[in-house]
Amino acid sequence: MKCEPFIKILGGITAVKGVQAAGVACGIKKAGLDLALIASTPPAATAGVFTTNHVKAAPVLLCKRKLHMGRLSALVANSGNANACTGRQGEEDARAMARITAEALRIPEDEVYVASTGVIGQPLDMEKVAWGIRHAASLLRPDGGPDAARAIMTTDAFPKEAAVAYEHGGKRVTVGGMAKGAGMIRPRMATMLAFLATDASVEKNPLQEALRHSVDHSFNLITVDGDTSTNDTVILFANGVSGTAPLKSGEDMERFQMALNHVTMTLARAIVSDGEGATKLVEVRVEGARTPEEARQVAFSVANSLLVKTAFFGEDPNWGRVMAAIGASGVELRPEAIDIYFDEVKIVERGVGLGREQELEAARVMRGRVFRLEIHLGQGRASAQVLTTDLNYDYVKINASYRS
Amino acid sequence: MKCEPFIKILGGITAVKGVQAAGVACGIKKAGLDLALIASTPPAATAGVFTTNHVKAAPVLLCKRKLHMGRLSALVANSGNANACTGRQGEEDARAMARITAEALRIPEDEVYVASTGVIGQPLDMEKVAWGIRHAASLLRPDGGPDAARAIMTTDAFPKEAAVAYEHGGKRVTVGGMAKGAGMIRPRMATMLAFLATDASVEKNPLQEALRHSVDHSFNLITVDGDTSTNDTVILFANGVSGTAPLKSGEDMERFQMALNHVTMTLARAIVSDGEGATKLVEVRVEGARTPEEARQVAFSVANSLLVKTAFFGEDPNWGRVMAAIGASGVELRPEAIDIYFDEVKIVERGVGLGREQELEAARVMRGRVFRLEIHLGQGRASAQVLTTDLNYDYVKINASYRS
Repeated sequence: MKCEPFIKILGGITAVKGVQAAGVACGIKKAGLDLALIASTPPAATAGVFTTNHVKAAPVLLCKRKLHMGRLSALVANSGNANACTGRQGEEDARAMARITAEALRIPEDEVYVASTGVIGQPLDMEKVAWGIRHAASLLRPDGGPDAARAIMTTDAFPKEAAVAYEHGGKRVTVGGMAKGAGMIRPRMATMLAFLATDASVEKNPLQEALRHSVDHSFNLITVDGDTSTNDTVILFANGVSGTAPLKSGEDMERFQMALNHVTMTLARAIVSDGEGATKLVEVRVEGARTPEEARQVAFSVANSLLVKTAFFGEDPNWGRVMAAIGASGVELRPEAIDIYFDEVKIVERGVGLGREQELEAARVMRGRVFRLEIHLGQGRASAQVLTTDLNYDYVKINASYRS
Repeated sequence: MKCEPFIKILGGITAVKGVQAAGVACGIKKAGLDLALIASTPPAATAGVFTTNHVKAAPVLLCKRKLHMGRLSALVANSGNANACTGRQGEEDARAMARITAEALRIPEDEVYVASTGVIGQPLDMEKVAWGIRHAASLLRPDGGPDAARAIMTTDAFPKEAAVAYEHGGKRVTVGGMAKGAGMIRPRMATMLAFLATDASVEKNPLQEALRHSVDHSFNLITVDGDTSTNDTVILFANGVSGTAPLKSGEDMERFQMALNHVTMTLARAIVSDGEGATKLVEVRVEGARTPEEARQVAFSVANSLLVKTAFFGEDPNWGRVMAAIGASGVELRPEAIDIYFDEVKIVERGVGLGREQELEAARVMRGRVFRLEIHLGQGRASAQVLTTDLNYDYVKINASYRS
């Protein structure tokens, strides 16, 4: 596949033509922006990927239902309260958020998507929310993306935005988005939200397919199905404002996919970098597995091992823990075929350590903020990679006191 | 089943008739006892359960082979070095440990079992080990259990011993043992060793069956298959010195099983209590599941959730995280059927929080060192329980600097 380089652009979701946004403070959180509104004119084809958790927050259930129609005019999201485990009242509140937004923007209620993130199990203060929505509606602007990105933050240390553009038949197509999430231990039960937009013209079904593929190669590298929060939501909408013909398949679609992947991968890396208290960003790469599934299994076993992650923090190339985590993955393997590297430094050959000098070299690699742990299983040609972080005091501190 | 109460006795493995032990310091660790020797006269029928990790330490591979014959005269174990990922040299060293012990005690090499725990990937200093074994052989005593229990410790804060006795046909039968392990996050990759002895007369096959059952209801409540260290080893031997007829099945065997379970459960609780840096011991109990397997799945999902465990440390009855962990277990369930308790305090009813006052009550419960988190799924009659701990600063501290 040939393709021109992307025109990388700064900015996020409002870099996309036809998209406006706003972020306001309405008092759900003790301080700071806590309600985001994003609007598309004209209404956009919509795709979504949601948590696989069996306990789903009210707004997730609502969005899933709306997706059957697949048309979006606006998206409203609050932080500070997840509206999860809130029973019937929670469902009514999520619907009310859509209704109030629809009234404020004079659009059909069906075309309003809703997301929430924050504390579980407390009812939303709908008076504050209603005021916030109306206020945000009055502030919608073509450069409001950064405020909206800030308004969906919870334990995030920084807002997360990304956008890229490319030329397609003389038209400029943009893909942009924002995300929140800061999971030291993969986002696990810390909610991940991502809102993505494009001015390409893509119909609902190919759009859904592109989103699923992109999520698998970005956000799902930092989390795994069945281990997600009650609120995880990724929404992508395409409003066609760029003026291109509808993208269907072949090279056109591949180029769009690449642009989308670039945005989702950038946001995913930002989430991991913002891992609660993280001091290291580590790419765990597994090579030489029999199948991609087995490669993934080994990569996740290592990336999620608390003993490996505390060793990252301690800058200790404790490859014994890596070997133990590989062995604990459940994948059938021969220890005596395994090689392990930190960046370019080989530290284990055929299952046995290469000695003190190599360990000192590896320790030097680990002093960096970003490095790669590479594992060669010597069984086949499949590979996988996962992003992870260290585990340190700050993770405990942030999460022991999150509600207080 | 009727049965007399146990005669609970203090002590550990050397409370069992015919068993002697010793613990010595031979310099594998920087300080402290680091080599344990346990001997049985006469040779005993032997059962064993070993790690399911695909990376197995040399002594584990050796013991598994010996188990086919199933006769034990002695067991030698060192701490400070796991003899794992040590290649061919490691296998030779494990065999040498058995050979040196056999020579020192003038017993067949086949009847010597070997275990190691400590750092992975470094060759054993066999000069020190050989000296240690000979020294320990000269110190074997009928009250040497406590020294041996101390000699197998690594990050353990205290040694772990247990023993019970009961009357059987006018004879006194004793079951005793020792363990090491301190896993805040289930023992995971921190090695768990348990050496158990009885003076009952039980043949190899029923002994193995009893051990498997007992491990499933004790050590496997704090760990799970496929997520174990390279060295996990549980060995049980029965030397018949009590003079009872061989136990086969029925009530005799049930009583023995109960005594064995009591010892293994006591040791398992001690391991969790000694969770690296743990300040809380929490029993996670799941009721009302459709199957025992699903109950276990939910219990482990909650007991291993880092967000739940940090909330234990923060004494925060953050039931939203508990709901999220239940939902993330992969078990199909209806959130609106779930009740949650801390000890007797109901905090969630039908999936919804019961409010501030109940949370304050639950927070009071969590201030204790030991409490129960009970989850009713409302789907069936199966239940499961798992022991876990909080996650706090000390865990990170201990594990970030373990090797240095």
